[in-house]
Amino acid sequence: MDYQRVEGDREFVARLEHGRDWREQIEAFADEEDIDAAFYIGLGAVQDVTIYFYDQEVQEYYPVEFDEPFEVTSCLGNISHLDGERFAHTHVTLSREDGSMVGGHLDSATTFAGELYVREFDTQLERAHDDVTDLDLWPL
Amino acid sequence: MDYQRVEGDREFVARLEHGRDWREQIEAFADEEDIDAAFYIGLGAVQDVTIYFYDQEVQEYYPVEFDEPFEVTSCLGNISHLDGERFAHTHVTLSREDGSMVGGHLDSATTFAGELYVREFDTQLERAHDDVTDLDLWPL
Amino acid sequence: MDYQRVEGDREFVARLEHGRDWREQIEAFADEEDIDAAFYIGLGAVQDVTIYFYDQEVQEYYPVEFDEPFEVTSCLGNISHLDGERFAHTHVTLSREDGSMVGGHLDSATTFAGELYVREFDTQLERAHDDVTDLDLWPL
Repeated sequence: MDYQRVEGDREFVARLEHGRDWREQIEAFADEEDIDAAFYIGLGAVQDVTIYFYDQEVQEYYPVEFDEPFEVTSCLGNISHLDGERFAHTHVTLSREDGSMVGGHLDSATTFAGELYVREFDTQLERAHDDVTDLDLWPL
Repeated sequence: MDYQRVEGDREFVARLEHGRDWREQIEAFADEEDIDAAFYIGLGAVQDVTIYFYDQEVQEYYPVEFDEPFEVTSCLGNISHLDGERFAHTHVTLSREDGSMVGGHLDSATTFAGELYVREFDTQLERAHDDVTDLDLWPL
Repeated sequence: MDYQRVEGDREFVARLEHGRDWREQIEAFADEEDIDAAFYIGLGAVQDVTIYFYDQEVQEYYPVEFDEPFEVTSCLGNISHLDGERFAHTHVTLSREDGSMVGGHLDSATTFAGELYVREFDTQLERAHDDVTDLDLWPL
């Protein structure tokens, strides 16, 4: 396991904006506050979700759209740099009103309501292409 | 996204009490320690769960009861004030012994076992009614 | 609820190693860095997962193997001592490429990719056998 000791910096509590994209507003917040490295946790509810499923064999993401309301039972993610922009890498677990669930790598979702805790670190994390997985990972 | 910078205060590690309600004992702990703002993460196992499903169209919660044992694969939540009392807003993801899953906004659950990390913030978070979603949210 | 106030110590950001066991490398990291108490959150992707399902009535874990790729939509866990060794107690929520999900107490999983945030505490947590649940819990 590659790892880096980090110093905790600012902490934020946030309310995600109704009607706006879940991930996009986290990235806009990170730009606004110049956050170069952070982890966050969250919960809430969304609509019109696009999950990116990763085919580990073909090594490609493919989008699956769900045009329905969900509770966000968990949202775990981090902020770092990718290709010169701030990227909010976000995995979600979602439950339907009938109790059934889906989840995965979040591309986009219209926020119904959401609450976030963000922990910033006093460092800069930068993603780079990893040949083995074909993903953009941190060279720690 | 509305947000507030917070200062981290006390941190706690907890063992949830067997046989007692999951959320009620988090709220009792928050009262005991005068915690006015916190986020927590947890894992464990429960029985006799009531999940509140939120109908985003009708804007109403309706309870669904599950009278069976579950693993808590994730518990994410926060402590703030609602109508003058401390409220532990908690979303859970639960797995059955056969691997199938349910999840959502937790109302109540009898604890089998549980472990929690609580991060307090040096502020007071207070929920107020939000007209758009008909939920009680933080006016940050 | 039994709890202990803890002082936050070091914080780490980690990239889990491709091809290596998810939990084993967290425990190896904890040994390397002499971490005696911590919580962590993570996300990623795995293969060849063994989940331990706990039968709350019989009070026994039984393993279920899944020989397929998954996204880790959430990983919540903690590091403490059990029988003289560091133990990474880990619950995961996993999604398949078709969106269906499984989850529970993680025994082992081959890492495809993974990202972790680890929060160390300045204490030592030690598990001991609990007669009521037949689990190894913290006597806080």
